Amino acid sequence: MSDHPRTTVGAYLATRLVQLGADHLFGLPGDFNLSLLDEMLTVDGLDWVGSTNELNASYAADGFARVGRRVGAFLTTYGVGELSALNGVAGSYAEDVPVVHVVGMPSRSSMDTGAPLHHTFLDGDFRRFERMSAEITAHRTVLDTDDPDDLVAEIDRVLRGALESGKPVYIGVPLDVATAAVPSGPIATPLRAPQSDTQAVAEFTDALRRRFDDVDRACLLVGPKVHRCAQEDAISSIAALPGVQVATQSGSKAILDETHPASLGTYLGATTRSDAAREAVDTASPLVMVGTVHSDFTTGFFTHGYDPGAAVELAVDRARIGRAVYPGVRMADALAALRDVVTASRLPQLAPVDLPATAPDTVEGDTLDQERFWGEVQQWLQPSTTVIAEAGTAFYGALDLSLAPDSDLLGQPVWSSIGYTLPATLGAGLAAPGRRPVLFIGDGSAQLTIQELGTVFARGLTPVVFVLNNSGYTVEREIQSPDAVYQDIVGWNWTQVPSALGAPGVTCMAATTPDELRDALAKAAGSPDAAFLIEVHLPRRDAPRLLAELARGINTSNA
Amino acid sequence: MSDHPRTTVGAYLATRLVQLGADHLFGLPGDFNLSLLDEMLTVDGLDWVGSTNELNASYAADGFARVGRRVGAFLTTYGVGELSALNGVAGSYAEDVPVVHVVGMPSRSSMDTGAPLHHTFLDGDFRRFERMSAEITAHRTVLDTDDPDDLVAEIDRVLRGALESGKPVYIGVPLDVATAAVPSGPIATPLRAPQSDTQAVAEFTDALRRRFDDVDRACLLVGPKVHRCAQEDAISSIAALPGVQVATQSGSKAILDETHPASLGTYLGATTRSDAAREAVDTASPLVMVGTVHSDFTTGFFTHGYDPGAAVELAVDRARIGRAVYPGVRMADALAALRDVVTASRLPQLAPVDLPATAPDTVEGDTLDQERFWGEVQQWLQPSTTVIAEAGTAFYGALDLSLAPDSDLLGQPVWSSIGYTLPATLGAGLAAPGRRPVLFIGDGSAQLTIQELGTVFARGLTPVVFVLNNSGYTVEREIQSPDAVYQDIVGWNWTQVPSALGAPGVTCMAATTPDELRDALAKAAGSPDAAFLIEVHLPRRDAPRLLAELARGINTSNA
Repeated sequence: MSDHPRTTVGAYLATRLVQLGADHLFGLPGDFNLSLLDEMLTVDGLDWVGSTNELNASYAADGFARVGRRVGAFLTTYGVGELSALNGVAGSYAEDVPVVHVVGMPSRSSMDTGAPLHHTFLDGDFRRFERMSAEITAHRTVLDTDDPDDLVAEIDRVLRGALESGKPVYIGVPLDVATAAVPSGPIATPLRAPQSDTQAVAEFTDALRRRFDDVDRACLLVGPKVHRCAQEDAISSIAALPGVQVATQSGSKAILDETHPASLGTYLGATTRSDAAREAVDTASPLVMVGTVHSDFTTGFFTHGYDPGAAVELAVDRARIGRAVYPGVRMADALAALRDVVTASRLPQLAPVDLPATAPDTVEGDTLDQERFWGEVQQWLQPSTTVIAEAGTAFYGALDLSLAPDSDLLGQPVWSSIGYTLPATLGAGLAAPGRRPVLFIGDGSAQLTIQELGTVFARGLTPVVFVLNNSGYTVEREIQSPDAVYQDIVGWNWTQVPSALGAPGVTCMAATTPDELRDALAKAAGSPDAAFLIEVHLPRRDAPRLLAELARGINTSNA
Repeated sequence: MSDHPRTTVGAYLATRLVQLGADHLFGLPGDFNLSLLDEMLTVDGLDWVGSTNELNASYAADGFARVGRRVGAFLTTYGVGELSALNGVAGSYAEDVPVVHVVGMPSRSSMDTGAPLHHTFLDGDFRRFERMSAEITAHRTVLDTDDPDDLVAEIDRVLRGALESGKPVYIGVPLDVATAAVPSGPIATPLRAPQSDTQAVAEFTDALRRRFDDVDRACLLVGPKVHRCAQEDAISSIAALPGVQVATQSGSKAILDETHPASLGTYLGATTRSDAAREAVDTASPLVMVGTVHSDFTTGFFTHGYDPGAAVELAVDRARIGRAVYPGVRMADALAALRDVVTASRLPQLAPVDLPATAPDTVEGDTLDQERFWGEVQQWLQPSTTVIAEAGTAFYGALDLSLAPDSDLLGQPVWSSIGYTLPATLGAGLAAPGRRPVLFIGDGSAQLTIQELGTVFARGLTPVVFVLNNSGYTVEREIQSPDAVYQDIVGWNWTQVPSALGAPGVTCMAATTPDELRDALAKAAGSPDAAFLIEVHLPRRDAPRLLAELARGINTSNA
């Protein structure tokens, strides 16, 4: 090996991450990751984003990966650091986001001898925390071998696993290994994105053609994994064909411009806003499910009328026509086949389904409530916005908006961990610098992860942050025991928060009336290069339409 | 069963917790724990403390248990809630704190049918998160049986396990089980604290007497598990006997008044402040280790001169004399035996070991640095104070103080998770309402868990919070790469934080000079019934003596 160019484990790993697009590394330093950080940060193009805690780091990396349509990465220290991040990693797993969790570990000699180090249980078991992560990652490694070739092969194996699975992975690096010399040769060959089995694609395409022999429309139900596979353009090109209808799931609401003639809006089972759109999905034969997820929230608590088993499904790494599964047919190739088949089918042009306005009209009067708030927001939202909406009133309010062209809706409809979106806003903003993030978050949720707001502003992002102050956990009040003591939170002075967190220049406004809200919205629109926090006072027991229906669904399901 | 008094699972569990002293329940509501909360909060004497996030809830419950010398408890929801708390639970495990983690789970029918619910991976595996907690808890249960007697037996089994192990336990309650009827009869019999094996105690006592046949002093090294077993008084009564010397570990620094003639101060291997004290411990034969922990930090990075294998050890649930282990001899009985043996040994009175002042004298001059800061604090600290010191400069600064009588030092010297002490202050204050908590925490650490400060003030606690603002992670700067970008944090406006978090009445002061510091200290001392935040500006690269030595130890150990 000695004649060949060499690098270090840390630099190799960092180079690979940059190649995969993970050019921002979130996290915190700790006793066992300093050498690893020093090595990784020698690599050009890797930008360290110091996080305020590890959960927030994992959320930020997840938001970065989602909006960037690429791999995200964050780094923690052994034990105390990594464990704080597990909820975020689990969210990435549940929602198919490839996040690389890098953990700086004690030295191999400490682990081999079972040294009673701090950040351990003093019992010599140094694999406990890796075992915990095994439940929530698709691939893992602890780099404890002496063989330099094996070290880089292990890194590549696990990173390739992230690409293939679209799920989080775990890489533990003992501190002495971080600086170990390894061959740099493999870096010249970027990790190959997973490819389809061409024979399987051919057979699937034939079968799909037969399945479309005698149909008069192609109805797609498009889910969030389409975003993970960056297949938005493929959806758009299919939507442009005659005879095509496209409904979305809540995690991919804005994948097609919502004014597109093929759009059926967002499908949510019985809670779908448009009966005609719901019926179009429920009666489709075949229904083509593309990158969908099947859950209580995506099906309106299992009130969907279609039969998933009879559908055509284009998943991340396989396709299915009814009972026939085609492993190795990846979504991009399946969508290309679908486009060809639909084109060849020469389906008749369909009249657009008449969708009711997805947001309420602006209501007159002086009361600022949920309906009025979302109506004003509807008028205000600009194109090319990353709308980020926290689980609860925010997500289900935003879901009924009609987003302007080229917008994204970022949320966490499956995992639904409150607090997620605030650090995700940091990741989203860094992944797409040209797009203004607009965050909607309830006061209860914002408290969980508030510290990352300081980082958002310190990095020069210019979001508009709406804190929906309704004095507690309105989503839970809708479900049960609205006046229970546990629904209350400590009332914060939200407009003072940015300054306290180091950003006195952020414009903070509170709106208790429609006029104040309109004024705040106008100011934020007028200064697109500045950051804003707008506290919106809303009634304690007021919920958007969808949230109220969702709460009823949870109640029924729980009973 | 129908003729017998009945209660519900939630009420039964809550009653047991109150019996064990866990009369404050920390946590957050969530979709799967509302019925459980409703049932639990019907029980008189259980006070709900809404937390701002789950990690903070686990830290608060831990601090509550430590200071209250009893069981702590917190409640989360399934998946998203419980996973955020795992680092806190692991800290309780590493440092022997009996914390009950109650998790509200989906209904048994949802789990039995593998329903694709939110807060899951949609794969029907509802035991994944329990498996993760299995790595960091001593006992667990998921209450999924139909048999009412089994339900209460399971609750009792796991709670008894917390008492016996002194470690955290996990109780998962499906939402339909929370309201299930169970017999209330068992509640009348409180769970019995674990008892010693009397025969083992007798044999141990005999052997201990023989071991002390020919000794001229009894040297105790007392560790933090003495606090967990609430055996402080037993230590004091032994210390009052002639011929006894007592050194403490960092987790039990103030267990004996530090001016006590038997005191050897805090033992830290080669970094022990007093050479005479270090030698007294290292040459003791036998050394009597009581509730000690053996780790890098407690031994000055393994520079201890005593042989643990040759020592007498009084552990939580067993005793040992050299190689002879006596399972079932619990600490209280072992200490009673020790007191008897030492009394009977009629050891000669010892001259007190002359300990150097543990805090630096107040230095003259205008520079506010670590030495000056701790010197001023030394003059200021009052008796009956719970001193809470965060890992890093704060803990190792506080460790060199001489605490006033009836004081506690609360820290996390083994697990050393930054951010821990701020929520622990909430728990500490609620567990001991008559004692004023004094928190020392670095700016980097405080950012991790800052939101709980709002809860501290909202609950009416009157702490003095010192934020040691040294512009980043000084402890890590001491270890390696002091000027690396990852050592920096976003600069916050600390004196604005309490008001932003809902407590505008808290007096906030910043000190950049000794005069400003003295002024702030005087104000805080003058208003013992008010809360204070004092931001202390300290040099970026300045560290207390012990931290600098610790960092050198880490460096050597890592190399």
